Amino acid sequence: MHPSIVEVAPRDGLQNEPGTVSTAAKIELIRRSADAGLRRIEASSFVSPKAVPQLADAEAVLSEVPRRPGISYAGLVFNERGLDRALAARVDEINVVVVSTDALSRRNQGCSTEEGIIRWTSLAARARAAGLWRTVTIAAAFGCPFEGEVPERRILELARRVAAAEPDEIALADTIGVGTPDRVRRLVAGVARIAPNALVRCHFHNTRNTGYVNAVAALEAGAHVLDASTGGIGGCPFAPAATGNIATEDLVYALDRMGIVTGLNLERLIRTGLWLGEVLGKPVPALLGRAGAFPGRDGLA
Amino acid sequence: MHPSIVEVAPRDGLQNEPGTVSTAAKIELIRRSADAGLRRIEASSFVSPKAVPQLADAEAVLSEVPRRPGISYAGLVFNERGLDRALAARVDEINVVVVSTDALSRRNQGCSTEEGIIRWTSLAARARAAGLWRTVTIAAAFGCPFEGEVPERRILELARRVAAAEPDEIALADTIGVGTPDRVRRLVAGVARIAPNALVRCHFHNTRNTGYVNAVAALEAGAHVLDASTGGIGGCPFAPAATGNIATEDLVYALDRMGIVTGLNLERLIRTGLWLGEVLGKPVPALLGRAGAFPGRDGLA
Repeated sequence: MHPSIVEVAPRDGLQNEPGTVSTAAKIELIRRSADAGLRRIEASSFVSPKAVPQLADAEAVLSEVPRRPGISYAGLVFNERGLDRALAARVDEINVVVVSTDALSRRNQGCSTEEGIIRWTSLAARARAAGLWRTVTIAAAFGCPFEGEVPERRILELARRVAAAEPDEIALADTIGVGTPDRVRRLVAGVARIAPNALVRCHFHNTRNTGYVNAVAALEAGAHVLDASTGGIGGCPFAPAATGNIATEDLVYALDRMGIVTGLNLERLIRTGLWLGEVLGKPVPALLGRAGAFPGRDGLA
Repeated sequence: MHPSIVEVAPRDGLQNEPGTVSTAAKIELIRRSADAGLRRIEASSFVSPKAVPQLADAEAVLSEVPRRPGISYAGLVFNERGLDRALAARVDEINVVVVSTDALSRRNQGCSTEEGIIRWTSLAARARAAGLWRTVTIAAAFGCPFEGEVPERRILELARRVAAAEPDEIALADTIGVGTPDRVRRLVAGVARIAPNALVRCHFHNTRNTGYVNAVAALEAGAHVLDASTGGIGGCPFAPAATGNIATEDLVYALDRMGIVTGLNLERLIRTGLWLGEVLGKPVPALLGRAGAFPGRDGLA
């Protein structure tokens, strides 16, 4: 099993950080991630600068990222205008979010879940014609901050609907960090059954210390791709004091020790996480930078 | 499956906190833990006050804990003198640590692993005669801060040796937080095979964000008992900036949502963790107190 990891710190990580990070620092983060071996990087979001001011510089970032063979840059896209911008910025992938509950969908995207499916379907057709990799993310797949519990059958039905537009990949996102491994296993297996031609990807937040449990459960249930954020940055807009995405370095440490090949350079990831803490002016949630890898370079802790 | 949880904040938690906590606060912590439904509480350590000044008040603590039917108090014991003290303080259980590597054993206990086995065997006989529950903990079962990797066969051989003294329970301790779920599963199954009459207990630190993954893996592999520390306090003496034991509230949150019955009151655990942060004068590592349970009392986040 060779899972691949999508680095989401430049997008989901920075989107949820209160401070502003310079365009130069974002490009440096992406360059460091590529140097650590990451081959898929969610570089920015092509949404209204009013909605997400932290990522208003998407074009400027994409214009200077290192373009190397094998490195794929993704942009989050919400509408046709965003897809125009993403295409002009030469992204390799788009990621379109469909929210499983109307309450969060309206608040987050200004439309119902049903309208979100229609929007995704239209964007998928254009992106397919343009030769882009197409990911559709089912948000609030493990619970909603407004509606509470979301039935699994609703998520699987939504997966069936979005699969009709032939995504390359369907992602299950635990937007608010409330998932547990039993549900992760059921949903991963369910989506793989419903959409056998798509990869299954998972996006976990460690808001309640279940992020890594869920990540391992997802891989063991057959997920092909995991999102992670260097430094574990990102927080959660609905829980201001909460920690963020699962951290790339902490995830890779665990997978390495389990004998699961990621092809990533742990030392470089740890250094990037520590550097990111300096950029943000606060310690990042990732623990590897504090505790150190084991065994250390000399074989000891 | 009804796993039981041993609350270790009063012992392993406070032992590794730099500040001093008053005897009254320790008693209050234990009382709150009992009120939250915890039925096994590691209350203190009967070691030299010079070695562990934070727990020098073991007798004073045990003299005032609530003695209720069904609540069992454990004391960590290193030698005959400690057992004398523990018996006088009316503990219900003793926990004796045998370290899997000579380097850490000498540093931690002033004796080799072999001498540690002999010591445990002698203490077990006396404790058995006194009618106490007897736990033997294999420390550094997943790695040693001085010797690095510890072969699994050495841990299983050590389990075989300590099992000869007929413990009620054998605990596998990830002293420095370097375990991963694959090894957890193998060791839990191995110990259960070697010592079919003993319960298998696991003790995890979340030093590198693998603590909760390991806890779920241990239960699914058949472990009967997990240690946890309210607030996730405890740190690690070998990694000063590291987080501590897995947090009782975060563990119970995950198990509750997985449908695993613990019988504990999550709201009370969360409140106790927040209160403990006030006592220690800093936020505790547990995340539930920051993020809130899901669903909340009104069914929403």
